Amino acid sequence: MDAVGGDYAPHNVLAGALDALRDTGNRFEVLFVGPEDMVRSGLAKIEHNGLAYQIVNATQVIDMQDSATAALKQKKDSSIAVGITLHKEGRADAFVSAGHTGAVMSASTLILGRIEGVSRPTIGAFLPTENGVCLLVDAGANVDCKSQHLYQFAVMGSIYSQKMLHLQNPSVGLLSIGEESSKGNDATLEAHKLLSQSKLNFIGNVEGRDILKGKANVVVCDGFVGNVVLKFAESVLDLLKTKIRRYAAHGIMQKAWAGMMAGTLRSILKDFDYQEYGGVPLLGVNGVSIIGHGKSTPKAIKNMILKAEDMVRKNINRSIRETLQTVRGL
Amino acid sequence: MDAVGGDYAPHNVLAGALDALRDTGNRFEVLFVGPEDMVRSGLAKIEHNGLAYQIVNATQVIDMQDSATAALKQKKDSSIAVGITLHKEGRADAFVSAGHTGAVMSASTLILGRIEGVSRPTIGAFLPTENGVCLLVDAGANVDCKSQHLYQFAVMGSIYSQKMLHLQNPSVGLLSIGEESSKGNDATLEAHKLLSQSKLNFIGNVEGRDILKGKANVVVCDGFVGNVVLKFAESVLDLLKTKIRRYAAHGIMQKAWAGMMAGTLRSILKDFDYQEYGGVPLLGVNGVSIIGHGKSTPKAIKNMILKAEDMVRKNINRSIRETLQTVRGL
Repeated sequence: MDAVGGDYAPHNVLAGALDALRDTGNRFEVLFVGPEDMVRSGLAKIEHNGLAYQIVNATQVIDMQDSATAALKQKKDSSIAVGITLHKEGRADAFVSAGHTGAVMSASTLILGRIEGVSRPTIGAFLPTENGVCLLVDAGANVDCKSQHLYQFAVMGSIYSQKMLHLQNPSVGLLSIGEESSKGNDATLEAHKLLSQSKLNFIGNVEGRDILKGKANVVVCDGFVGNVVLKFAESVLDLLKTKIRRYAAHGIMQKAWAGMMAGTLRSILKDFDYQEYGGVPLLGVNGVSIIGHGKSTPKAIKNMILKAEDMVRKNINRSIRETLQTVRGL
Repeated sequence: MDAVGGDYAPHNVLAGALDALRDTGNRFEVLFVGPEDMVRSGLAKIEHNGLAYQIVNATQVIDMQDSATAALKQKKDSSIAVGITLHKEGRADAFVSAGHTGAVMSASTLILGRIEGVSRPTIGAFLPTENGVCLLVDAGANVDCKSQHLYQFAVMGSIYSQKMLHLQNPSVGLLSIGEESSKGNDATLEAHKLLSQSKLNFIGNVEGRDILKGKANVVVCDGFVGNVVLKFAESVLDLLKTKIRRYAAHGIMQKAWAGMMAGTLRSILKDFDYQEYGGVPLLGVNGVSIIGHGKSTPKAIKNMILKAEDMVRKNINRSIRETLQTVRGL
């Protein structure tokens, strides 16, 4: 566990991880990786008696402002590099961080290596839909994707959804600009062919409007598109809040009404609360590496750790390797 | 005016166009293009005395289900082909349609030709922002864009916003996956350089979350990304409606509350009503060609016609031609 990753580290990280240990009766052990004094002073403020943790010293912290590549070169003793190395060496079964996404991704790929058959590891992200959640993959890790990359994202996303979300035969949609197989750009047109020939439950192209409708369990796209859609989605609620706030400024009655309305809307839209989903996995690396939002609450951290444990037990990487082995020439 | 384009044609088209004539005191003349009997029977149901219209017979109608290219080949006497030809021949100053977007685009490009310096005509679309509207360009006409295409979209979008939305020096943002100039895909990285060297008010990369914040007046992107974002945006309100409806199903009190809330939300979010913007222009063709939503109301049709008149008077195409002439080698 990267003890110093995230905007509210170490407090939220320690609190969430200790909750996970408490709730599971120490079903696993947590190694807190980071500058020892920081971790100790953080722990001093939280009840932690009898919980199965250890501290592993790492003297450096990668800040959110750092460039991923530069930070990994210059900060060899960062919590991220040390933590992932612990995993690589088998002293930990998984690595979890709410820190620098790019650094966790790069370090995981470099240190753990890629699963055989995977050209590019990918990050998925969850979006709420009318009937559950949808896994959007790639969520921003890879731009300028070729068709075989999109195909691999589909395989990894499908296996993840099946094993982790308990979906029997997850439907996979290819994000494009029209339902017809003739609609799309060069990469999606070619990916459509690959996916049609695959054993995945491929339902064809889906459009921007189909994501929130929940038309597919897994929506496959280039990381450029995925990143734009996710950030756009996040901003919609902000716009709504601004509009309601302005409406409230019209008078005392409007203010009261807007306040009540905002409360109800919040409860209606609680699915949009990504904290519930507890981080997103980096798929395609030789290991289990989970990346959380910088603003992760203790609850989100707890969910990330439980998810990491689940991924280890289910051995998702073996399924990915085996599935990709059966396909030639990609 | 394509009299038979759109889901509620000819009624909405005729009603909107006649309103435009009435409101402006016949400041211009409208040619209704379509099967004469359909137009006449539509007109019979609407007050039209003393209004400056003519009917131009075109025997065929391109349906929404038709493929654009096939329809243009097979239906030589369609309202779209005949209407655009009237414009090409100088018998009309502009063409307006709420019909088949792809067919209007293809026919306009083929019949009217491109403005010198424009590689690919483009369609923009408006999105509401916290402080007004934003023009997203390209909105779906062109996929697999190269940097020079993105650059040309920026020039056309900027001129359109300046002349039509009365913005002194419209800010132009390049949609990407991070603010830094080093973030993006191959096309946007290269386009960033071209835009930085241009005379446009280029504010650099903008992210998905910046669109609705109104960070830029013009947001430039590949038509694949633009199409996905627009369709996604449309669907957000649908999800909200579904959630509110489900909440209402919890009981009689919830139902009353949800009803009141939906009403207020509607009034708060009326900017999302694209009808107000009255269609989107096809930029880069040698003429004025405006494309409306298939579900256009009479009000939207009226606004489209007034916008067409405005574009003709302001001679936007001359500005586009002159601006692109000053740049070499693109």
